[in-house]
Amino acid sequence: MEMLRIGRFAKMLGVHPLTVRRWIYDKRIKAVKIGKEYRIPYSEYLRLVGESDVENRVVIYARVSSKDREKDLHTQVEYLKRYCNEKGYDVVDVLTDIASGLNENREGLNKVFEYIINRKVSRVVITTEDRLTRFGFKYLSKLFGAFDVEIEVVDSKKGFKTPQELVEDLITIVTSFAGRLYGFRSHKRKRVIEGVRSLLSS
Amino acid sequence: MEMLRIGRFAKMLGVHPLTVRRWIYDKRIKAVKIGKEYRIPYSEYLRLVGESDVENRVVIYARVSSKDREKDLHTQVEYLKRYCNEKGYDVVDVLTDIASGLNENREGLNKVFEYIINRKVSRVVITTEDRLTRFGFKYLSKLFGAFDVEIEVVDSKKGFKTPQELVEDLITIVTSFAGRLYGFRSHKRKRVIEGVRSLLSS
Repeated sequence: MEMLRIGRFAKMLGVHPLTVRRWIYDKRIKAVKIGKEYRIPYSEYLRLVGESDVENRVVIYARVSSKDREKDLHTQVEYLKRYCNEKGYDVVDVLTDIASGLNENREGLNKVFEYIINRKVSRVVITTEDRLTRFGFKYLSKLFGAFDVEIEVVDSKKGFKTPQELVEDLITIVTSFAGRLYGFRSHKRKRVIEGVRSLLSS
Repeated sequence: MEMLRIGRFAKMLGVHPLTVRRWIYDKRIKAVKIGKEYRIPYSEYLRLVGESDVENRVVIYARVSSKDREKDLHTQVEYLKRYCNEKGYDVVDVLTDIASGLNENREGLNKVFEYIINRKVSRVVITTEDRLTRFGFKYLSKLFGAFDVEIEVVDSKKGFKTPQELVEDLITIVTSFAGRLYGFRSHKRKRVIEGVRSLLSS
């Protein structure tokens, strides 16, 4: 992200630096204070000259945990497309993954990151938080925010029901924790995993 | 990390591109050759405009999960201070939390985020990955990278032993998952949590 000094920003827009200062104080433009000086994100320049309506650009993200739930993936995507259409959003891409929400290195999600880091979109639109990630939603939310990107959760209450996925994720977590606690080839580890499995299925 | 072309870098600093080339040849600024062209890291820009030596600035982060392990917090901090001292790092702040690694809204960690987003540091120094977060390490690593910040894990192999903390985190996770699966006031939920508790303690 390029950060502009007030002088340069003013010159680029053909206004007086004092005008820019006033805009900052009036919060008409975003600026950060670095040491004693203000810096203005390049995206503010783009916004003001009306180049690229990033404001309106969104990326859709959907996920299911396994191949046999592909139909639900389709449902999520259609639902979100309709939603974005109603809102008048410009959908620049639809990204999907068939993977666990515990997987932190998903192909589709990585592409979402690229859109965000390169400031190509202003929103990521999802059905529920757990589609984006099982853990770390607040991290993502905060760090996306640093790129002026918001996560729009369309359907946070109702959600798409995923009890089977929850059980699978929990077993994955228990397996990993038990390995770290008791060693990966221990009997105790096996007993804990089997125990949890039967508790959940009973 | 953002890499700048010579032309852009020159413009950002208000100097002639030939001047920038001379600086590169004189090794006054760092540059990498990509194909036939030079690219200059954004951090060099910050360094020249007097954001001073961000390159060398680091923030230390340490965490324990509960008050009774405060002594270990002290151990982590001292260990990391010594390490940074040996490396010649400029430690701009030492941030700590007494909280679970599952907690995504920790005061100390939030301050780390601020340092990163405002490009005040080039590294976050920690003892082990799980001090920073129980889940989502790869997300943080990737998104910090977009701000040219690296996570330096000093002691990833040995680690500070935290079996009790692992057990507590696992119980927290099981409690949350069971609530979502069976309803927060159900008997089944209670039975699963108790079951896991006894499996882990036996």
